[in-house]
Amino acid sequence: MNVNSKYKGNKMRRIAIIGGTGKEGKGLAYRWALSGHDVIIGSRSIEKAQIAADEVNELLPDHVKPVGGLENIQAADWAEIVTLTVPFAAHVDMLEYLKDTIRGKLLIDVTVPLVPPKVSVVKMPEAGSAGKEAKMILGEDTEVVIAFQNISYERLMRTGDIDCDVLVCGSSREARDTVLELVKDAGMVGWDAGPLANAMVIEGLTSVLIYINKRYGSKESGIRVTGVTGEEN
Amino acid sequence: MNVNSKYKGNKMRRIAIIGGTGKEGKGLAYRWALSGHDVIIGSRSIEKAQIAADEVNELLPDHVKPVGGLENIQAADWAEIVTLTVPFAAHVDMLEYLKDTIRGKLLIDVTVPLVPPKVSVVKMPEAGSAGKEAKMILGEDTEVVIAFQNISYERLMRTGDIDCDVLVCGSSREARDTVLELVKDAGMVGWDAGPLANAMVIEGLTSVLIYINKRYGSKESGIRVTGVTGEEN
Repeated sequence: MNVNSKYKGNKMRRIAIIGGTGKEGKGLAYRWALSGHDVIIGSRSIEKAQIAADEVNELLPDHVKPVGGLENIQAADWAEIVTLTVPFAAHVDMLEYLKDTIRGKLLIDVTVPLVPPKVSVVKMPEAGSAGKEAKMILGEDTEVVIAFQNISYERLMRTGDIDCDVLVCGSSREARDTVLELVKDAGMVGWDAGPLANAMVIEGLTSVLIYINKRYGSKESGIRVTGVTGEEN
Repeated sequence: MNVNSKYKGNKMRRIAIIGGTGKEGKGLAYRWALSGHDVIIGSRSIEKAQIAADEVNELLPDHVKPVGGLENIQAADWAEIVTLTVPFAAHVDMLEYLKDTIRGKLLIDVTVPLVPPKVSVVKMPEAGSAGKEAKMILGEDTEVVIAFQNISYERLMRTGDIDCDVLVCGSSREARDTVLELVKDAGMVGWDAGPLANAMVIEGLTSVLIYINKRYGSKESGIRVTGVTGEEN
């Protein structure tokens, strides 16, 4: 996989992955640990967190600092960047629970507002998107960036390219740029997709890709941004 | 360009392009005429419609049936498929005006709900999307399909591949399949992106691409669907 110096951001980060025992959480932990970041998986129980961390550590080469496991609130307290990978049904409650602990930090929200059983039909929460919902709960002092919604999580714990770009929306350009570095570090191509008002498009695209998978008998549809040839502004 | 027998749908259609004197309308007229469809450009004035049709006809080879020009309502009355390419500010009024004339036909809505001056920030109408707004106005008897929102219109009147896929949402699978044939006939790759509830994602993606153009100094960003390897269902 292309997690190497070419893609590597400049700064080592302390990253917690809240609700990180699922495939998406373990996949991101694996890729970020591999590129030199300090990663802790959080879960409601420390035992489950450590089991998930052990699974990731078995895949990591010996020279890499192993991933740790803690309860969610301890992981969030330790981290400078907090990644949220919980089912949408737990989104509001988990954010209320974390709110004070992560004040002033950067939240990367990976949540997709899927409403079973019709997960191939877009249905946004009243706030407009999961990202805007997070920002409403966390308030002015905490930056919120949404990312990684469209990645097929099957791909994250494999080596090799991921044939899907990562669209990043967030509450400030500085926060988006920090997350774009972490996208690179995870071996993926990221794009600044603008303010949180645009998050509904990126989150909703997951339902569209689920629909395309169903209609075309696929499992891992994704998207690539094309036609960008200019210089960054 | 790849408008050839390989891509060609089975059926010749009578297609009106309402508000078709802009780049998007003329571009679609050009590509559909080239692939053998019967096309009329509509405008508020027949003179403007005919000037636009003449521009398109100058680009078409001699053996192709020329594009016609009519007033919007006459063009809509003549057509079996009605394509709407008006600015969002004219969307509701034009649909009210056309409603009775196009009852029972298929509307292809190309409208993007951009709200100047912040066109790089997603802002959907109260109905949820322009496509849902059209369906609310037109009612049960008229099929609505949204398509072509993400194509840079600069590309439509040029020869050569368009490096952007077309995501198609609509009120029935049959209507989406008809439009997917027309996407092929226009030399593009189309995907069934599901029901009209998903239209907000495709329409909103235009603002995201405008944001990406601005941020990365590009003019023609687009998207491609990747990773689809299965068999259609």
